[in-house]
Amino acid sequence: MNTPPSNRTRVRRVANNAAYDSATVHAIVDDAYVCHIAFTDDHGTHCIPTACWREGNHLYIHGSNGSRMLKRLMEQDVCVTITHVDGLVMARSAFSHSMNYRSAMIYGRFEKVADDDKAATLEAFMESLMPGRQADIRPGSANEYAATTVLRIALDEAACKVRAGGPTEEEEDVDYPAWSGVLPLTRVRGEPVTAEGNGAPVPAYVHAWYRGAGGA
Amino acid sequence: MNTPPSNRTRVRRVANNAAYDSATVHAIVDDAYVCHIAFTDDHGTHCIPTACWREGNHLYIHGSNGSRMLKRLMEQDVCVTITHVDGLVMARSAFSHSMNYRSAMIYGRFEKVADDDKAATLEAFMESLMPGRQADIRPGSANEYAATTVLRIALDEAACKVRAGGPTEEEEDVDYPAWSGVLPLTRVRGEPVTAEGNGAPVPAYVHAWYRGAGGA
Repeated sequence: MNTPPSNRTRVRRVANNAAYDSATVHAIVDDAYVCHIAFTDDHGTHCIPTACWREGNHLYIHGSNGSRMLKRLMEQDVCVTITHVDGLVMARSAFSHSMNYRSAMIYGRFEKVADDDKAATLEAFMESLMPGRQADIRPGSANEYAATTVLRIALDEAACKVRAGGPTEEEEDVDYPAWSGVLPLTRVRGEPVTAEGNGAPVPAYVHAWYRGAGGA
Repeated sequence: MNTPPSNRTRVRRVANNAAYDSATVHAIVDDAYVCHIAFTDDHGTHCIPTACWREGNHLYIHGSNGSRMLKRLMEQDVCVTITHVDGLVMARSAFSHSMNYRSAMIYGRFEKVADDDKAATLEAFMESLMPGRQADIRPGSANEYAATTVLRIALDEAACKVRAGGPTEEEEDVDYPAWSGVLPLTRVRGEPVTAEGNGAPVPAYVHAWYRGAGGA
């Protein structure tokens, strides 16, 4: 499927890079630790970063019950954007330089997750960050869950743009004697750093997380 | 200096992590390839990612003259946000988990860079991406510069939040027998990939960029 779900999500600039299918949206969300949310209030327009995760066809965020932002996000249509930069694209001419990236823009309104569902969805968040950790830690208490608000937004009205691969040169530039190519950028997982004063050994699931990303 | 420049930028949540000094703002911008810009138009509120760079106390962006977004950005106050995720912070309790990050939120209005200054500032952009490349490539033509709009926004009204270091545990959790610590996340530069059909050797400045980030 490559049909935009709404006038709001139709990509106009470099429309060849646009995608609207769920698999692309889900993969971009799943690779993100944070999203940026644009919304407005009496002080103007804001762009706030916050941690996010996905379950099914929804993107989830959480915060304190006292958060002004969370209240605002249920009162208006917002735009949630995730961007991964994958490389710098070096062409033979200055003008043809570009970046490789994957971005998703999601439009809609957040809704509150019911109190009865909060524990399960916050555990899913932990599982998305660090598979295996939930069983190892002191679980959330009733008071802690009560102090936390979880919101979700459907991934129905979403537009992605993805650029990958080498430079696109103008016809006139193909004989220009400059090197061209791609400079890849990747996010890597570093070696776990045990907290000061903690004598517990590094658990197997932490080792697995690190090694799974090419760690030693 | 750690005094917020405006009511709009005063950090209310976890205010201990807030910083308002230019050095912190500049460092966060300098480490970014893209920023996210929140603005509004007749279709609602948008959050758009775009490449950025810094000169002095301004953040710069560029695009096609035909861009709807660039026009809007000069007509209203907007919010530009940059976020770097530096690690996952694993505490002994689920509730105390966190992330290490550096974020900057910049408020203000974009202004157009004068035609006479466009070439110099786009060359500064290239220099910020890839030091040494400008001299190697086919420079921008008069037509290419004429088709490009460059905007800038002052970094005067900006708020940063920075979290670093290990987990902060609740008093009641310090004896809980779970491992705790930080899982670092880093952006790394990959080995340059020469474009298909390009026979030029990889230039020294490209090798330097790669090696400068720990490449072989």
